[in-house]
Amino acid sequence: MKLLKMHLAKPTFLIDKGKSIVKIEKMLKKSQRQGLIFRPHFKTHQSKEVGGWFREVGVQAITVSSFEMAEFFASDGWSDITVAFSVNPNEVETIKCLSGKVNLNVVLEDISVVDQLDSKLDSPIGVYIEINTGYHRAGLNPRDIDLITPLIQRLDKSHNFDFRGFLTFAGHSYHARSEKEILRVHSEYMEDMLGLKKEYISSNPMLELSIGDTPTCSIAEDFNGIGEMRPGNFIFYDLMQVIIGSCTRDQVSAIVACPVVAIHKDRGEIIIFGGAVHFSKEAINTKERGDYHGDVVMLQDGAWSCEETGAYLSWVTQEHGIVKAPESFINRIKIGDFIGVIPVHSCLTANLMKKSTLILNSENEAIEE
Amino acid sequence: MKLLKMHLAKPTFLIDKGKSIVKIEKMLKKSQRQGLIFRPHFKTHQSKEVGGWFREVGVQAITVSSFEMAEFFASDGWSDITVAFSVNPNEVETIKCLSGKVNLNVVLEDISVVDQLDSKLDSPIGVYIEINTGYHRAGLNPRDIDLITPLIQRLDKSHNFDFRGFLTFAGHSYHARSEKEILRVHSEYMEDMLGLKKEYISSNPMLELSIGDTPTCSIAEDFNGIGEMRPGNFIFYDLMQVIIGSCTRDQVSAIVACPVVAIHKDRGEIIIFGGAVHFSKEAINTKERGDYHGDVVMLQDGAWSCEETGAYLSWVTQEHGIVKAPESFINRIKIGDFIGVIPVHSCLTANLMKKSTLILNSENEAIEE
Repeated sequence: MKLLKMHLAKPTFLIDKGKSIVKIEKMLKKSQRQGLIFRPHFKTHQSKEVGGWFREVGVQAITVSSFEMAEFFASDGWSDITVAFSVNPNEVETIKCLSGKVNLNVVLEDISVVDQLDSKLDSPIGVYIEINTGYHRAGLNPRDIDLITPLIQRLDKSHNFDFRGFLTFAGHSYHARSEKEILRVHSEYMEDMLGLKKEYISSNPMLELSIGDTPTCSIAEDFNGIGEMRPGNFIFYDLMQVIIGSCTRDQVSAIVACPVVAIHKDRGEIIIFGGAVHFSKEAINTKERGDYHGDVVMLQDGAWSCEETGAYLSWVTQEHGIVKAPESFINRIKIGDFIGVIPVHSCLTANLMKKSTLILNSENEAIEE
Repeated sequence: MKLLKMHLAKPTFLIDKGKSIVKIEKMLKKSQRQGLIFRPHFKTHQSKEVGGWFREVGVQAITVSSFEMAEFFASDGWSDITVAFSVNPNEVETIKCLSGKVNLNVVLEDISVVDQLDSKLDSPIGVYIEINTGYHRAGLNPRDIDLITPLIQRLDKSHNFDFRGFLTFAGHSYHARSEKEILRVHSEYMEDMLGLKKEYISSNPMLELSIGDTPTCSIAEDFNGIGEMRPGNFIFYDLMQVIIGSCTRDQVSAIVACPVVAIHKDRGEIIIFGGAVHFSKEAINTKERGDYHGDVVMLQDGAWSCEETGAYLSWVTQEHGIVKAPESFINRIKIGDFIGVIPVHSCLTANLMKKSTLILNSENEAIEE
């Protein structure tokens, strides 16, 4: 424990290895029970060390959100990678380079992209057609047969593309605030996706369905007919997932340790070194607190207690964080102490904190990466 | 121009060098007219190349927001550095190392921090007491003489601290929406700061006043009695500064070029590769648009037109950006094109885009850094 304390001088992202591995094993078992391929999304941690924990339990296929990330994990020996982001045709050189080295899948939705890439590729890549099952970000409407059918036909006409199936990210599960609401999103996308499978399975008997959001992967149990799941955030979870109902507070396995730099008792506020360059400006809104950026927990020698303190990160500027706290909490704190912040969105926080991350073993000692 | 086009494959932060230098010269002249030291804040650009443009016109003193940034610029030969952030006593080793190499100033507001640092320092550091002139982030109330006087006395008692004066960041100028509102913030902090000078100048004849926010530094003309100004954001400006009234749209000198990866005409939306890992989740709110993350402009061969397009970045997730756009704009765009986004907050964007920045000369050619 002393070891860790010596490391902490600045805001530091702390990852509890033991808790994280329990969640990997749980998600792996669920996918095995359902006969699904487990293709975890590595955009959450973006860490070769954390990636190794998945490899140790037998995971072989992964998801990332950019070709840059695909290159990063390919360099660590991952050889089956889906880039779950509408393919950017300007990156064709990277795609060519990657497709020569790994089993690469891309995601697209527009026939013009197939046309742009076709003449430039030299080894085949797998393609998933993205389906919008209600998040309304990218993807085709599952009922847009007039767009989907010609797209599949166009893919089938080329030797450079191997049509693998349909992929969706049901991100609207993030609007859920209970298990019941999560399950409603799940049953809606199941209907959409299974409908597409029924429509195209006779012409494309190998087609698979790929789903991905952490809330439904955490809570739902019936994935009959689906081929693979791609959850990412569950490796850490975060305050948003607690509020959605995907996990308990105790399952969150990463927080940011932040030094206290000023105390304003008269305003009920603590000022921390920990701002938008550490947490992003991701916010969650509750009636009592309005928009806020994280939940504050007590921290001792790297171990954090999940106990509610009533303190929360109410406002962030570039490097400053302003914590609203009850007097009882403020009285326990002095300048120079570290407090823990459960971030609203661990993916964005992990991305910002890459250079300032400590992985803790069961003794709360830092594991050198 | 061809040179630049070859570089663009992914989201890229484009900096117009010529426009940026015009603004540096303008701010330098203003500070010289007023007899102020110009100590620009380098947290905005965090770039040695951009820092060099300030050095070329004679700037010698700079501001940063962390000791890490101070080390970065010290390694580039900057020797007079103020870390304008409540000093974190856990970083005493870095402070000692820096204070041996450069003329270092820190900012604090609490006597307990002086006590914590005093026994550990071995060469003297400059200290500014931070004053809260209405932003209500860090700093002492200017009327809290009962806290300020003993703090100055405590600093004066030690050989390790050289009390330099009072520092404020009037960040509440960011709530202004007109020159008139900016000038009201300016006159209020001038009154607070000059009042403190009057109070303490006889006991501390060398004390100086330091002010910093970009809106008032851009618009106000009377800084009589102030010792130095520390604006940072003005080097790029951004959408927020346009809306505040600190600058015109044409003065913004940095944008993000983002590839279009999908088009949803039926929803009036364009999907770009450009999300929270590029822009942060900083938002601005207007009645017509609600919360949004940037203004979209046309981009050709690296040059952007400031003309209003009616298109804006309405929503960002980790890597995706969703642009709301009028039909006339969508009709001019195809997948694979790059569009420009004026970010809401250029400081956070520049921080995230450090590894993907291009500086453009007057021919819109990329300057290799």
